[in-house]
Amino acid sequence: MKNTTSYIEKNKDRFLSELIELLKIPSISADSAYKNEVLKTAEAVKDSLEKAGCDTVEICPTAGYPIVYGEKIIDKNLPTVLVYGHYDVQPADPLELWDSAPFEPVIKTTELHPEGAIFARGACDDKGQMYMHVKALEFMTSTDQLPCNVKFMIEGEEEVGSVNLSTFVKENREKLSNDVILISDTGMIAKDTPSITTGLRGLSYVEVEVTGPNRDLHSGLYGGAVANPINVLTKMIASLHDENNHITIPGFYDKVEELSQEERAEMAKAPFSLDDYKQALDIDDVYGEAGYTTNERNSIRPTLDVNGIWGGYTGEGAKTVIASKAYAKISMRLVPGQEWEEITELFKKHFENIAPKSVKVKVKPHHGGQGYVTPTDNIGYQAAAKAYTDTFGKAPIPQRGGGSIPIVALFEKELDSKIILMGFGLDSDAIHSPNEHFGVFNYLKGIETIPLFYKYFTELSK
Amino acid sequence: MKNTTSYIEKNKDRFLSELIELLKIPSISADSAYKNEVLKTAEAVKDSLEKAGCDTVEICPTAGYPIVYGEKIIDKNLPTVLVYGHYDVQPADPLELWDSAPFEPVIKTTELHPEGAIFARGACDDKGQMYMHVKALEFMTSTDQLPCNVKFMIEGEEEVGSVNLSTFVKENREKLSNDVILISDTGMIAKDTPSITTGLRGLSYVEVEVTGPNRDLHSGLYGGAVANPINVLTKMIASLHDENNHITIPGFYDKVEELSQEERAEMAKAPFSLDDYKQALDIDDVYGEAGYTTNERNSIRPTLDVNGIWGGYTGEGAKTVIASKAYAKISMRLVPGQEWEEITELFKKHFENIAPKSVKVKVKPHHGGQGYVTPTDNIGYQAAAKAYTDTFGKAPIPQRGGGSIPIVALFEKELDSKIILMGFGLDSDAIHSPNEHFGVFNYLKGIETIPLFYKYFTELSK
Repeated sequence: MKNTTSYIEKNKDRFLSELIELLKIPSISADSAYKNEVLKTAEAVKDSLEKAGCDTVEICPTAGYPIVYGEKIIDKNLPTVLVYGHYDVQPADPLELWDSAPFEPVIKTTELHPEGAIFARGACDDKGQMYMHVKALEFMTSTDQLPCNVKFMIEGEEEVGSVNLSTFVKENREKLSNDVILISDTGMIAKDTPSITTGLRGLSYVEVEVTGPNRDLHSGLYGGAVANPINVLTKMIASLHDENNHITIPGFYDKVEELSQEERAEMAKAPFSLDDYKQALDIDDVYGEAGYTTNERNSIRPTLDVNGIWGGYTGEGAKTVIASKAYAKISMRLVPGQEWEEITELFKKHFENIAPKSVKVKVKPHHGGQGYVTPTDNIGYQAAAKAYTDTFGKAPIPQRGGGSIPIVALFEKELDSKIILMGFGLDSDAIHSPNEHFGVFNYLKGIETIPLFYKYFTELSK
Repeated sequence: MKNTTSYIEKNKDRFLSELIELLKIPSISADSAYKNEVLKTAEAVKDSLEKAGCDTVEICPTAGYPIVYGEKIIDKNLPTVLVYGHYDVQPADPLELWDSAPFEPVIKTTELHPEGAIFARGACDDKGQMYMHVKALEFMTSTDQLPCNVKFMIEGEEEVGSVNLSTFVKENREKLSNDVILISDTGMIAKDTPSITTGLRGLSYVEVEVTGPNRDLHSGLYGGAVANPINVLTKMIASLHDENNHITIPGFYDKVEELSQEERAEMAKAPFSLDDYKQALDIDDVYGEAGYTTNERNSIRPTLDVNGIWGGYTGEGAKTVIASKAYAKISMRLVPGQEWEEITELFKKHFENIAPKSVKVKVKPHHGGQGYVTPTDNIGYQAAAKAYTDTFGKAPIPQRGGGSIPIVALFEKELDSKIILMGFGLDSDAIHSPNEHFGVFNYLKGIETIPLFYKYFTELSK
């Protein structure tokens, strides 16, 4: 590739201002109040793909939010790269914890990012990382260096479980046919330590409702004599982990793939400082499943976390009430081997079983997805490794990720190709949290690295 | 007493419309947003006492909401009755569960109240019951039948723990001197079964905050490796009760007064149907401390209930987040013998002790009060019993109540007189709940019964 760095240097300000415009649209797929904004974002993505050089771009309707599909086919005999990303974002709350408005992007320098970082919801996850691919395409087309065919599939429901993507993929196998799928929706170990995610966790997300009496009650007149749904919910949730923080749902671990000692030893080589980790989170100690390290707990082990809980009086001051209902949102991260629908069913049955007779329990499955592991011996991985090595001056470390991209497993099954997870984000980017940001360095490094992947992948395909 | 029923019949509509006007003012003391409304209510109470025949009425400022004091002294040699009540009300939420707006009172008939019931926040607790005393005074003064002196002390902070009342009482012992204290802020067993509350539970109300990481985290990247403050909070709360639903806080039961088998047998005589109780609440089973009946669990036994809990994402849809903080409001109902400040301290120490090193815990005491038991062998109780017997045609049943009126114990200590709890409300009135109401029958029965208490108390004092 020629003139990559000079092209980026020349267009850097525009690359940033274009992304900032995209980040201004609050495309929160979880909250129907933002429906029009999500749809507006799809239009913006379509425009950007056309400007970047796609021959055809279409907004494909689904039962939910549309999928933006674009392509540039230069030669049927050359390999085809399918880029997947998403234009929807997580809800921004709690708003009061943001230093600047989540949808009014600002570039600020931080200790880790002296070159500045873009602060906004979606800056990294995934608008920023998705847009790197759009700008990489622009560079390759405008400098006439695109070495192969490219297809884009950018969806708007990733943060709510990609509920309609699987249907779209199944119905468009031909259109989406490719030789490798490229995704930037993960992170790397450190700013100067590139890594490629070789595994993802699956997900099962449920909402539970516990109903006690048919109305809120005075805690003096009824306290102690009637099941308090909040007390009961806390007991039920607490019982989901034993004293070793193993999950107690019968059958939960049956299909978990255990890693070999060699694999665990390999993992342990990744640079990691527990003290830095604790300091960054301001915690006195970590917490998790007995017998596993921090990096194992958040990648190769399944987990169960309450993502939200509510019930009773939560306003100012005091109210002596026994609530009629209590609720919680609970998600389980799954590892390869675990079937997410099966785990959801196991959870539902178990949670209903442990409910005392004095309450009624409802379990509502939200969404889920399979875990995924990719081998490192395929040309896709090798092309990515060479690209990182060129731009970072060192080979990337293969890393199992703790997050979930529910449809990755589906892609491999339906489209029969390998998925390469080239992430440029950092753990400190605070994705899903207040003050999400994406380093300008990381953003531009991505735009610089991605074209090299195309180059090497095309060469290795010969 | 002459012409009581005819006077009530003649003025019934006005008695109702006056109360409805008072109920329209949202005097929510727990929420500072209603400050002006609470103050407005104090003015309205002052006006009503003047109209009812008090010689002097004043609004006494405190560090919080003012206390309305009024008196009518007809003869220093006659006994003096001090009436206590409160003009503040509980918050009205959850609003969506009200069939009519909480501060737009309506009179509707129900199965239990064919004569109609007034639906509004505060209809029973305590504006309605307090206003019975105002109208009873009006009757006695306007028909020239007031047999003794009367003093009114109506506060505006009962629902937030009467935080400033004790100072007021201690500083005004002379002004408040009396021979008996009369309170209608409790209920009776059934519409046709009068009862007098001979005991109240104490209260300790706290708010807890559990902090894990210093920011919300992505549950995929950190799930399983970092203490989730919601999971930890549920474990901590669950551990506060053992498998027999005994409270596990060390020392919690040390000073609990156990009732004798005779006393428990006496209690068991009160009419009670467990089936009706379960049906009314639409629960398949009751729940509580092993070894005690439902009526014992909610009256003579201390309890611990979570009144509110919140943390993480509670909006629509799903968010895969590990919250930085989780909160709960927890109240303990105490029985005679337990010191509320001591229990609050025991809770605080225990809750901080059981917190894992991976989180930080804050316990913020809200308020509290002592339990209270009144003997039945004093003339105050006897006067009340005779009054009920006249108007209901049967003697009232002495009953230990589960609720708390934190300052009752203080009254006895500071003012050295007995407290008579003449309640006219019913459990089904849904106080502290949506659709709180007060039967028109109960309201008018109270106005009819109270003057007889004055009559008999004066006679028995001779």
